[in-house]
Amino acid sequence: MSSSTKHPHVITCKAAVAWGAGEALVMEEVDVSPPQPMEIRIKVVCTSLCRSDVTAWESQAQIPIFPRIFGHEASGIVESVGQGVTEFEEGDHVLTLFTGECMKCKQCTSGKSNICQVLGLERRGVMHSDQKTRFSVKGKPIYHYCAVSSFSEYTVVHSGCAVKVSSIAPLDKLCLLSCGVAAGLGAAWKVADISEGSTVVIFGLGTVGLAVAQGAKLRGASRIIGVDTNPEKSEKAKAFGITDFVNPNDLHEPTQQVIKRITDGGADYSFECIGDTGMITTALQSCCDGWGLTVTLGVPKVKPDVTAHYALFLTGRTLKGCLFGGWKPKSDLPLLVDMYLREEIQIDEFITHNMPFEDINKAFDLMREGKCLRCVIHMPK
Amino acid sequence: MSSSTKHPHVITCKAAVAWGAGEALVMEEVDVSPPQPMEIRIKVVCTSLCRSDVTAWESQAQIPIFPRIFGHEASGIVESVGQGVTEFEEGDHVLTLFTGECMKCKQCTSGKSNICQVLGLERRGVMHSDQKTRFSVKGKPIYHYCAVSSFSEYTVVHSGCAVKVSSIAPLDKLCLLSCGVAAGLGAAWKVADISEGSTVVIFGLGTVGLAVAQGAKLRGASRIIGVDTNPEKSEKAKAFGITDFVNPNDLHEPTQQVIKRITDGGADYSFECIGDTGMITTALQSCCDGWGLTVTLGVPKVKPDVTAHYALFLTGRTLKGCLFGGWKPKSDLPLLVDMYLREEIQIDEFITHNMPFEDINKAFDLMREGKCLRCVIHMPK
Repeated sequence: MSSSTKHPHVITCKAAVAWGAGEALVMEEVDVSPPQPMEIRIKVVCTSLCRSDVTAWESQAQIPIFPRIFGHEASGIVESVGQGVTEFEEGDHVLTLFTGECMKCKQCTSGKSNICQVLGLERRGVMHSDQKTRFSVKGKPIYHYCAVSSFSEYTVVHSGCAVKVSSIAPLDKLCLLSCGVAAGLGAAWKVADISEGSTVVIFGLGTVGLAVAQGAKLRGASRIIGVDTNPEKSEKAKAFGITDFVNPNDLHEPTQQVIKRITDGGADYSFECIGDTGMITTALQSCCDGWGLTVTLGVPKVKPDVTAHYALFLTGRTLKGCLFGGWKPKSDLPLLVDMYLREEIQIDEFITHNMPFEDINKAFDLMREGKCLRCVIHMPK
Repeated sequence: MSSSTKHPHVITCKAAVAWGAGEALVMEEVDVSPPQPMEIRIKVVCTSLCRSDVTAWESQAQIPIFPRIFGHEASGIVESVGQGVTEFEEGDHVLTLFTGECMKCKQCTSGKSNICQVLGLERRGVMHSDQKTRFSVKGKPIYHYCAVSSFSEYTVVHSGCAVKVSSIAPLDKLCLLSCGVAAGLGAAWKVADISEGSTVVIFGLGTVGLAVAQGAKLRGASRIIGVDTNPEKSEKAKAFGITDFVNPNDLHEPTQQVIKRITDGGADYSFECIGDTGMITTALQSCCDGWGLTVTLGVPKVKPDVTAHYALFLTGRTLKGCLFGGWKPKSDLPLLVDMYLREEIQIDEFITHNMPFEDINKAFDLMREGKCLRCVIHMPK
């Protein structure tokens, strides 16, 4: 009997539901539908909190969609599969993908994009296939986040929004590759393609920024300048390759002037990892004329518009954005898992806190206070 | 006796002086100083009017610098050379360069930039070397424009701001390579590196936009969409490779929606050649997810800030600017002259009007009314 003929039933389990913007999550009993065609249901093992979860939960620059189950950086084990799924079976270890890969659309087959037209970033809080939810509390639908929603003991995702990983890889660490760490490494390697001996400036030393630093260091960048207003970030940053720490609050002149002086006219590459569109201008100004490249990775917390003087472009700068560091999620993520298993990249070092599921609101507090890199939330066994 | 020991004297000649923003140019007797060390004095043969001259003369988005002699797209013959100049001698045919090349600075020697740190775009109306002018009227200094100022029978430029050309090449045509046509071709070839079979959309079908079209056509682009609010541009545009003409005034929906439909999700490349920073957003929106590249070439007439929603970058778009199409002016321009002489690129077709120097204000009128591509102004013999 194939998995698809098992007729999986509704599962009732615990999920952390956000009932309104900025309101503490409430642990609820939720009903999780069986996976629909081409979907899989996953027993979440670990999920780490990403700043994007917090930004969407605050909903200051986004349309508020509530009630909702957040969480998009997760590892788990396949519990059941929907009709037509041949890629996964019960018991497979997987990472969730907040942006999927159908492998068939114009973008997926282009060989130069990770912006899937079918399973790309889902912004309306529903599943791609039928625009409906798979969660409910007492019959009331609960919206998804990025079609992942891992702050639940069980969740349903499209089979194109998960990737199988080796069963020997530690799921409590690997979840970090599901978003932040991979995004930073990809921005450094795939998007900017940092060259040896170059100078790099990184705005925002959270997980994404420090993953960019790790990527830059592994590429042999000669100078990696980290900019952050939180003085506590300085020490930790060095372990990831930051050679110079700049705190704008300690300066008596604009940050870009200091960067330009340190780098003799501007850095080769700059990265905006804060989610502050205003800082994109500073990032452009911190780059050199001629070939300066600014990569924007952050999801804006407040103002969604990027504004910059045209002369920054006229003099040869480039502004490039990326989602998930430009990685094709299903095709490329296994390579990063292999690199981790071979100890070529660091993940464990980003984990500052581990906590049980019931303490999830503490993770939100730590993230908002800038007191963590990654909090890994462990679901009940 | 070498040229540098000739002790050249002040030349008094005719120049078209702009005494104030937007005021008709006045033909004046100006004194032109001898070339200073590393400078050359040129007898201008032909100068074509570029939209940037008009934009700077209007001074709506720039600091007004008057009285001033505009003109930066010119051909001429070396009249005398200053101390230390070995590259040029009296009688050499030259094109002026509104952005120069010292061949020694970090940018010039990088192999990846045309933004010379020493002789780059001059914005203060003076000469690079001593921050002074070489023009005066009755003892009153007259400012330069881009350190070229070709709306004068004679002008002085730094030897790094001119390039020698074959004496058999027609100077009355070649002047167009000094800015607009070269800028468009470079944007298509060097900056965007347009690939065969790709789709291109060009905003603004002036000389720069049509030169981009020519560049795209020569690269084998499958579709080249031209956008302009002037219906008269349509016919002329086809000769340069435009396959589809879109007039936003004729549409009942946003231009980017129409482009996205025509191109099945957005063009591979878009070019902003109007000098309207607002249109850069439309150009980004007209590009496809994943690899869409927008190149901005225009010098803004009014608002100098570029504003765009961050999601356009998040989904994989790139915004790139360039000056002079990314060409290294002294190193690369001779290649374009050769291509013209081998009839591989069109220049003559951009010339819609020829007129004597004394009619220069007519050229300004034609440009402001959108009734010309290039007006070539012929200086007295």
